[in-house]
Amino acid sequence: MSDYGLRVLDPDECRAALATGTIGRVALCGAVPMVLPVVYGLLDDDIVFRTAPGEKLIAAVLHQTVAFEIDDYDTRTSTGWSVNVVGTPEEIVHPVELERARALGLPCWAGDARDRFVRIRAHDVTGRSIDERA
Amino acid sequence: MSDYGLRVLDPDECRAALATGTIGRVALCGAVPMVLPVVYGLLDDDIVFRTAPGEKLIAAVLHQTVAFEIDDYDTRTSTGWSVNVVGTPEEIVHPVELERARALGLPCWAGDARDRFVRIRAHDVTGRSIDERA
Repeated sequence: MSDYGLRVLDPDECRAALATGTIGRVALCGAVPMVLPVVYGLLDDDIVFRTAPGEKLIAAVLHQTVAFEIDDYDTRTSTGWSVNVVGTPEEIVHPVELERARALGLPCWAGDARDRFVRIRAHDVTGRSIDERA
Repeated sequence: MSDYGLRVLDPDECRAALATGTIGRVALCGAVPMVLPVVYGLLDDDIVFRTAPGEKLIAAVLHQTVAFEIDDYDTRTSTGWSVNVVGTPEEIVHPVELERARALGLPCWAGDARDRFVRIRAHDVTGRSIDERA
């Protein structure tokens, strides 16, 4: 148990949470910080999402460090958890990798112009949970 | 309709979304970017959340610019929206303001050590949605 009632998740718990999620949030720390929701999948344990040319893709091209986060909370029981991935985004351009990314079947909610794929090379993965009190 | 299938929310829509939410995410852009989920309320249209001494409070004390985000998605209909607030966090220390913050009744999920309150003075509020396709 960490300070302040939060339990630190171990690496296996973080990996399991990332494997079951579908929607995460990417935090970009450019001139103005911004959080963007994305539908994601995993490729070799890396976060992968589709995007259109824009902020997310710009960050990827510039190799700025980003944070990616998923969480889930239950307001009835006041329990929940979150996982944070810090890493460097890269646009996927190699044809073989692009084929693998397309094979993830990520939905294309905002129209077919979102045909670019970004993967986040993780530097650090951490998670915390608020468990039910005994 | 903006590019890439996203509709830009007007200020009233952003305000309405923020007024109905309970859980948001704060993106801190320090040496390492980090996204932290918070239970929040509104005080004079500012985002207010409880915290323990730690990253969020440090950012508040240092007056670093942060992003605060809420979103909601429906995977069945592939629709959803998100609202981003960019602003400067401040710890609430004035007794009258602190009383008002406490009166918001924000739950204290991770234990009673979370007895500090932070408000985010917004510089910019923007929102986007993916609506059902006609």
